[in-house]
Amino acid sequence: MSSTISPLAPKFVPELLPVPGVNFTTAAAGIRYHGRTDVLVMSFAPGTTVAGVTTRSLCPSAPVEWCRELLKKGKARALVVNSGNANAFTGLKGREATQLTAEIAAVALGCKTSEVFLASTGVIGEPLDATKFEGALTEAAGRLVDWPWLDAARAIMTTDTFPKLATAQVLLGDVPVTINGIAKGAGMIAPDMATMLSFVFTDAPIAAGVLQDLLSKGVKNTFNAVTIDGDTSTSDTLLLFATGAAKARGAKTVKSVDDPALRAFRHALVDLLADLAEQVARDGEGARKLLRIQVTGAVSKKSARRIAMSIANSPLVKTAVAGEDANWGRVVMAVGKAGEPADRDRLTIAFGDYRVAHEGARDPDYDEAVVSHYMKNDVIDLFVDLGLGRGSDRVLTCDLTKEYVAINGDYRS
Amino acid sequence: MSSTISPLAPKFVPELLPVPGVNFTTAAAGIRYHGRTDVLVMSFAPGTTVAGVTTRSLCPSAPVEWCRELLKKGKARALVVNSGNANAFTGLKGREATQLTAEIAAVALGCKTSEVFLASTGVIGEPLDATKFEGALTEAAGRLVDWPWLDAARAIMTTDTFPKLATAQVLLGDVPVTINGIAKGAGMIAPDMATMLSFVFTDAPIAAGVLQDLLSKGVKNTFNAVTIDGDTSTSDTLLLFATGAAKARGAKTVKSVDDPALRAFRHALVDLLADLAEQVARDGEGARKLLRIQVTGAVSKKSARRIAMSIANSPLVKTAVAGEDANWGRVVMAVGKAGEPADRDRLTIAFGDYRVAHEGARDPDYDEAVVSHYMKNDVIDLFVDLGLGRGSDRVLTCDLTKEYVAINGDYRS
Repeated sequence: MSSTISPLAPKFVPELLPVPGVNFTTAAAGIRYHGRTDVLVMSFAPGTTVAGVTTRSLCPSAPVEWCRELLKKGKARALVVNSGNANAFTGLKGREATQLTAEIAAVALGCKTSEVFLASTGVIGEPLDATKFEGALTEAAGRLVDWPWLDAARAIMTTDTFPKLATAQVLLGDVPVTINGIAKGAGMIAPDMATMLSFVFTDAPIAAGVLQDLLSKGVKNTFNAVTIDGDTSTSDTLLLFATGAAKARGAKTVKSVDDPALRAFRHALVDLLADLAEQVARDGEGARKLLRIQVTGAVSKKSARRIAMSIANSPLVKTAVAGEDANWGRVVMAVGKAGEPADRDRLTIAFGDYRVAHEGARDPDYDEAVVSHYMKNDVIDLFVDLGLGRGSDRVLTCDLTKEYVAINGDYRS
Repeated sequence: MSSTISPLAPKFVPELLPVPGVNFTTAAAGIRYHGRTDVLVMSFAPGTTVAGVTTRSLCPSAPVEWCRELLKKGKARALVVNSGNANAFTGLKGREATQLTAEIAAVALGCKTSEVFLASTGVIGEPLDATKFEGALTEAAGRLVDWPWLDAARAIMTTDTFPKLATAQVLLGDVPVTINGIAKGAGMIAPDMATMLSFVFTDAPIAAGVLQDLLSKGVKNTFNAVTIDGDTSTSDTLLLFATGAAKARGAKTVKSVDDPALRAFRHALVDLLADLAEQVARDGEGARKLLRIQVTGAVSKKSARRIAMSIANSPLVKTAVAGEDANWGRVVMAVGKAGEPADRDRLTIAFGDYRVAHEGARDPDYDEAVVSHYMKNDVIDLFVDLGLGRGSDRVLTCDLTKEYVAINGDYRS
């Protein structure tokens, strides 16, 4: 955890109510750190369903492979998250460590090994000694609570500068249900890699297949539309658990994605995912500015996404934003290198309300002083219109600062 | 031009002999800078052929579009390179400026407008006032020389910290010919964008089509295998001019790519392009280390290239190298995100002679102290074997330092 909180941190930390059917606690297993909690243990009521989205990396960590296997059944009774060791690139030993961790948790919490979800973040390539979980998990199982969620959010932080939480109360049909989410962002576990982990919980009774559909669609414009540096962790994991406890208050189990009872829930879930994803961007390593990139007029949404990502991952664009420079030349460059249909002479670019370029040339009304003043804001909106079609998309990123280089390059010096 | 020379600069600047048929001079047109030369003017003997490779950007600059058009004919009599203004994203005015520049040069040098090649580097989005070339080019035409080439190399520098030159003497059949090359690297023209320009000259008589074949193949493992930050300029241009002056010494014009007289020339050209490309990497913005990435065992050469580029463009890998950290976890990450076939459990990774990871886990003989000592070198070799096939490739890049961010982000502060 960093001692300096990101200037982009939300002004208020939301207060999360308990989610019936979810209990948790934190523990210190001494995986790598000492004198701090490094394990989050969660227990779910019988009947809890689960959906998940994991990293697109072709070299995923052992816990990611473990979760992928368990997601096929869609049932969950427990979640164990550790920091300090990612259990990635650990070969056969890594697979053995996930098995042992799940066995220890299953005994401690009284469930099946195949219902214990796992996530790890931290050093890569170091064997994870899962026997360290033995005492810690058994002890932790005796003191599970349903509140405060801030403890859960804090336990999964690594170099995050603030805990990330979001909550919603929404009607499922006519029964109020809760959705709570926590996330850890693209912060380093020195000396290794950034990992995004997020866990969302609801007491709504939703079948696993429906839950997976909601989550898979929900990430498209939220977590999948955020980039810090274009680097993809081996461990990125987002899991959505539904305990179904709201059945006790009359909620009916949702078994179809077309169930009209889902309408409000679906919107609330997407909003919550967007909230968490934005918090991740706001806590990007070294971030001093949040950059929201809106691309319109592309030939398709997919094309708009690629162009937006090309801009969002451009070191030259990101350093320009860090330097408070409305450098549309670099935006043109990033559009041009995206490999997507683009016509220089139809491009329009604006920062905030200020159009800087139009139809392939500098806007005749461009006023550098005014735009430079706008660039001093914490949140910068960049609009790019391709002038070709109706495809649009939006992605979030942060600026690239010397602090990013320091966080990721200085620890050996 | 920077006052601090890159620590990776070559120890010796090669001495380039005249290339018969090539004359040049530099001039100060006052495009943006004052008190320095900002134009390189070159004149080629009648009958000079030309080949070229330009940026893959879909938003190219006006001079790039101009060159592409002229390359169809393959004939050149002049080259005008200016710094200070890239004439990119300048709309119709940009096209008018290229036309006017070529007209002025054609009058000054006594050739056709359609034989005047153009390259510009500098600010984007600002109209280029080509009338400023009028006096400068006319005056310059009166004092063309064939030497010293260092002047030509210096005239095209922007924030390059050292001039980039390379030369070769080689037999075309049994007639000795010269190849000279100059380049400017990925240095900024504050406050805009990096651009790579390179120009290569020979007195060998080679038909334009053959020349283009040589160049197109020659860039694959040289200029196209170098990346500084993954950002592609709107203005990248590489031109190869062949004056044919060696015919006076008995050289026969090469009209077929299969002509055996080309064998040594082809190799010498590729070596020269590789030399210039490496100099560009060695002068990457803020570079303190040259990183040579060799990927083997991929399913194809194309796959190896993509994986190597994914590693080379990863901010986390580049900052680790800056921090002298043999962080193979980040290399695994970059392999995993490349989207190419990879099997974590077959990966082998080595820094220099030191294997750090083998078959999906840390090498049992890994000695951090020894590897850390290796990472203090100026030139770092990274080997990644996928263990899947016979595809291999090699790319060059540099580390990502705080100086990169400073160069690209600080100038407004």
